[in-house]
Amino acid sequence: MIYFDNSATTRPYPEVIETYTTVAQRYFGNPSSLHGIGMEAERLLQQSRSLVARLLGVLPGEIVFTSGGTEGNNLAVKGTALQYRSRGRHIITTKIEHASVAQAFEQLEQLDFEVTYLPVDQRGIVSVEAVQRAIRSDTILVSVIHVNSETGAVQPVEEIGRLLRAHPKVLFHVDHVQGIGKVPLSLSAGDIDLCTMSGHKFHSVKGTGILFVRSGVQLGPLLSGGQQEHAYRSGTENLAGIVAMTKALRMTLENQDANIKHMRQLQTELFCFLRTIPEAVLNTTPEVSAPHIVNVSFPGVKPEVLVHALEEHGIYVSTKSACSSKTGGASGILLAMGLNEQTAGSAIRISLSAENTMEEVREFQRALRQVLPKLYEVTRLRK
Amino acid sequence: MIYFDNSATTRPYPEVIETYTTVAQRYFGNPSSLHGIGMEAERLLQQSRSLVARLLGVLPGEIVFTSGGTEGNNLAVKGTALQYRSRGRHIITTKIEHASVAQAFEQLEQLDFEVTYLPVDQRGIVSVEAVQRAIRSDTILVSVIHVNSETGAVQPVEEIGRLLRAHPKVLFHVDHVQGIGKVPLSLSAGDIDLCTMSGHKFHSVKGTGILFVRSGVQLGPLLSGGQQEHAYRSGTENLAGIVAMTKALRMTLENQDANIKHMRQLQTELFCFLRTIPEAVLNTTPEVSAPHIVNVSFPGVKPEVLVHALEEHGIYVSTKSACSSKTGGASGILLAMGLNEQTAGSAIRISLSAENTMEEVREFQRALRQVLPKLYEVTRLRK
Ligand SMILES: Cc1ncc(COP(=O)(O)O)c(C=O)c1O
Ligand SMILES: Cc1ncc(COP(=O)(O)O)c(C=O)c1O
Repeated sequence: MIYFDNSATTRPYPEVIETYTTVAQRYFGNPSSLHGIGMEAERLLQQSRSLVARLLGVLPGEIVFTSGGTEGNNLAVKGTALQYRSRGRHIITTKIEHASVAQAFEQLEQLDFEVTYLPVDQRGIVSVEAVQRAIRSDTILVSVIHVNSETGAVQPVEEIGRLLRAHPKVLFHVDHVQGIGKVPLSLSAGDIDLCTMSGHKFHSVKGTGILFVRSGVQLGPLLSGGQQEHAYRSGTENLAGIVAMTKALRMTLENQDANIKHMRQLQTELFCFLRTIPEAVLNTTPEVSAPHIVNVSFPGVKPEVLVHALEEHGIYVSTKSACSSKTGGASGILLAMGLNEQTAGSAIRISLSAENTMEEVREFQRALRQVLPKLYEVTRLRK
Repeated sequence: MIYFDNSATTRPYPEVIETYTTVAQRYFGNPSSLHGIGMEAERLLQQSRSLVARLLGVLPGEIVFTSGGTEGNNLAVKGTALQYRSRGRHIITTKIEHASVAQAFEQLEQLDFEVTYLPVDQRGIVSVEAVQRAIRSDTILVSVIHVNSETGAVQPVEEIGRLLRAHPKVLFHVDHVQGIGKVPLSLSAGDIDLCTMSGHKFHSVKGTGILFVRSGVQLGPLLSGGQQEHAYRSGTENLAGIVAMTKALRMTLENQDANIKHMRQLQTELFCFLRTIPEAVLNTTPEVSAPHIVNVSFPGVKPEVLVHALEEHGIYVSTKSACSSKTGGASGILLAMGLNEQTAGSAIRISLSAENTMEEVREFQRALRQVLPKLYEVTRLRK
């Protein structure tokens, strides 16, 4: 099996599952309980929080453990709106966000917030100037994805953060779900207020995530209750998941440089190969891309058909992002980049992890060379 | 170790952890992915949903998998408010809810909803008539806990449900977190619209939960995004957790009758024993209580001190509920029952699971007999 769908989800590291199992068995106490079994669990929880904070270069009090990226994004966006709505009702995001940010903004629009959706250029990049122009006196939030999940395009979030220094009443949220472990991002520089990560995208188990909340920033909670996670995210803590994710984060960041280099090599090989295929339209711009995503269209070929044809060779890629793969039609993100319907509607995404090998890339090349002519033959016959 | 804090959390069944591990390893795909690895995960997800639905006697389309009880309660309460706010802004709950319901209502109060908090009698029971009297033409929600987490008092939720049949525009939510597996509740009778359960209270792993949403009922989502879980709870599914929780639910419900009988025997023994202690004030009324909770005050003794003294005998009980154990002061729930500050402020909770034994109860009796006189001695000396 060649798994090239790592942006949808990754295979958990065996060590991470082992940690999960150990903690679930041995430390089953409720961290809120006053007795020893609870206190042991609480200690483990705080150790994880401290380690995550150290790995990310921030304070333990700035780490909120969540159930995943969707929760982190929703809490950041809606929690800001809830908390600061009396300050202003204008919020800014881009046209290329993940559904969990895009839908949160749409919901807020229905609740009388006004939204500016920033466009992107043909590489899929939002401009810092566009952010600047969009800011108004009643703006309370700017939310920008770091690495786009379909194309890999890296947004200039550090520059946007610097720009926003001049607007201390505007909070800045970054969806770092596809960026963590692939494109380093400095939280300690202080220009990002809220930052979302999701465990299962970096080889942790599912149901785990991190929201960084800069100290001083307040959020209206979506999940109220027992005041866990600094009262931003109540509910009995998923301790085994948290400790396991902490381990996955450590493993990911310890090997980050080597991993990035390795993925970049595989990606470069894929770019070079795809350029030799006349029908291929590359939607990922190498110069502005994260190392793990290659998005390419084969106009005239149905992407679902291509996905299944590759699967017969044991190769797993995707169309669009997993979350939107079941809703038909062209990718909204590729359309926002100015692609026509046919190109935007015939894209596949190859997404790598550091576990993939050059041999797998070669295998993919062989398979694609075999599969494509047949699919184009079918297309021609249909005409 | 004698673990008598099962209302705070339970020890996961070893088989449940095993299931978790197997699924996390073998079925790591994203159920939203179109390829075979995703489809396998999707199939397992739907099997779990069907099995949970069958176990609860409802439809698969009525099961929403969540991250726990706090999320289920918040989604039910706030999701209803969000969805039906144009219909009316009056909502009803009780004075003895878990923090995750109580705080959700408080948050809605700040968002211009009007809340009626129903009182309870000295047994800790809300009256059906009080619900009836509270209903207005602009009421959209009634939320009542099934089994109180501190006292075990069982609320007349089925009767309240029947009453609400006459008010089809009022949704009825039941917090069944402490009830599942201990006090059977019929969802199929059709009088409950929303019902929350939490996996870690019935020997599942943490980070898992169920919200039953009767078909026809709509909710505004708290977590928007990729439209997972009928769009009520977006986010990549915690498949391993879901399958593991499904197993825990099956094990719990298969043995429900025997388990209840067993816990009831242990509880009765505890009641009889505590009646022989002159200082003990029983806050749990046997006739209206679930089989697994015994709440008792020892006025004059600090409950934290008693908890720690019992811990030295290897026995783990709690003060109040875990979630509120770190905020000092008397239990709001016991105060709502009309207890005075001293009695309400000196309560401990013994909470059983079917894994506890009569031998453990005897051990507890011996320990308490040893410990209490010493603590009262200290109290007397202080005076
Ligand atoms: C950029 C981005 N943000 C958010 C999410 C949502 O994360 P999760 O699946 O953990 O809910 C994803 C993946 O689905 C993503 O790729
Ligand atoms: C009655 C009741 N409701 C809700 C909850 C919250 O559930 P969870 O801990 O899974 O968030 C609890 C336990 O903490 C509870 O006892």
